[in-house]
Amino acid sequence: MARWEPDARQRLVAAALDLFTEQGYDDTTVAQIADRAGLTKSTFFRHFPDKREVLVAGQDTLSRLLAEGIAAAPGSATPLEAVALGLEAAATAFTPERRELAPRLQAVIAANGELQERDALKHVGLAKAMNDALRQRGVPDPAASLAAELGVIALRRASARWTDPANDQPLGDLARQSLQELRAASAALG
Amino acid sequence: MARWEPDARQRLVAAALDLFTEQGYDDTTVAQIADRAGLTKSTFFRHFPDKREVLVAGQDTLSRLLAEGIAAAPGSATPLEAVALGLEAAATAFTPERRELAPRLQAVIAANGELQERDALKHVGLAKAMNDALRQRGVPDPAASLAAELGVIALRRASARWTDPANDQPLGDLARQSLQELRAASAALG
Repeated sequence: MARWEPDARQRLVAAALDLFTEQGYDDTTVAQIADRAGLTKSTFFRHFPDKREVLVAGQDTLSRLLAEGIAAAPGSATPLEAVALGLEAAATAFTPERRELAPRLQAVIAANGELQERDALKHVGLAKAMNDALRQRGVPDPAASLAAELGVIALRRASARWTDPANDQPLGDLARQSLQELRAASAALG
Repeated sequence: MARWEPDARQRLVAAALDLFTEQGYDDTTVAQIADRAGLTKSTFFRHFPDKREVLVAGQDTLSRLLAEGIAAAPGSATPLEAVALGLEAAATAFTPERRELAPRLQAVIAANGELQERDALKHVGLAKAMNDALRQRGVPDPAASLAAELGVIALRRASARWTDPANDQPLGDLARQSLQELRAASAALG
């Protein structure tokens, strides 16, 4: 076991994805993940409460970035403009390393109902982070809930496009486009 | 133990809510719930996989009603008009018995993080049911996702108002009002 732990978190995520892909999520243990990453089980548990949480590793960071981006929007910004700035702030978390892992991450989640549940909860958490940040700007309900849900749908769509090998646009641009498409769709809902 | 089981499902829900309220969710066992309802553990497990699922007992019925209402909307209906008809169909599940249990149900969920997660997933499930039904009508994405999310937000808001003791309107009316408020808020998002 290595005594140093630079990027331990990222190494654990990569090791977990390797093992989940090779031998399945259910058959993979925390000890195996730590071992593959060249780290101890204690180190694993300093970063994640269990193997499931490895797959939503970025949720807290994303929530924080979304909230910060919304909070930093000018006072004159409309709710959707604030959400757009939140998405732009969140885009910094979509690194090349993350993109490399994304297809395997999606495959693991798609193969397991429990993980799909956890993934759905992640999106609920992101919506709550945006909703809270919008309420703090004085956006009333239900406009805040609605803008937050639009933000989550835009982020999911942008993220799916971003992980497509054929894509070469940064996530921030894709998120902006998705939000604009949602606004257009919204006007046509009847 | 009673040998007959009329309304077993509803009796189990009421017994579970009693016990969760009296002694807490964590300290309540399936055996205690069955006993309080005058039923066997086997009967419990014919209706629910575990005690947590008791608290989202209506999810499948709600999903089905929402989807049926959307499917039955006239071909000329806009996506939001179809969602309104889905909500109207779902309103039939909001019975006086359910209303009586609602305050205790909400209190139990509010006191437990795990149950809040399950409740969030219920809403994801309802959104998926509406989204699928809209897609089957030929509503494209993202309009379908968006209309489904609006439907869920409207249903949650209407449901909260409906359980307020000061309210005397049926859920169908409250859902229609909520959807109209959301449309108005949507226009002001910027």
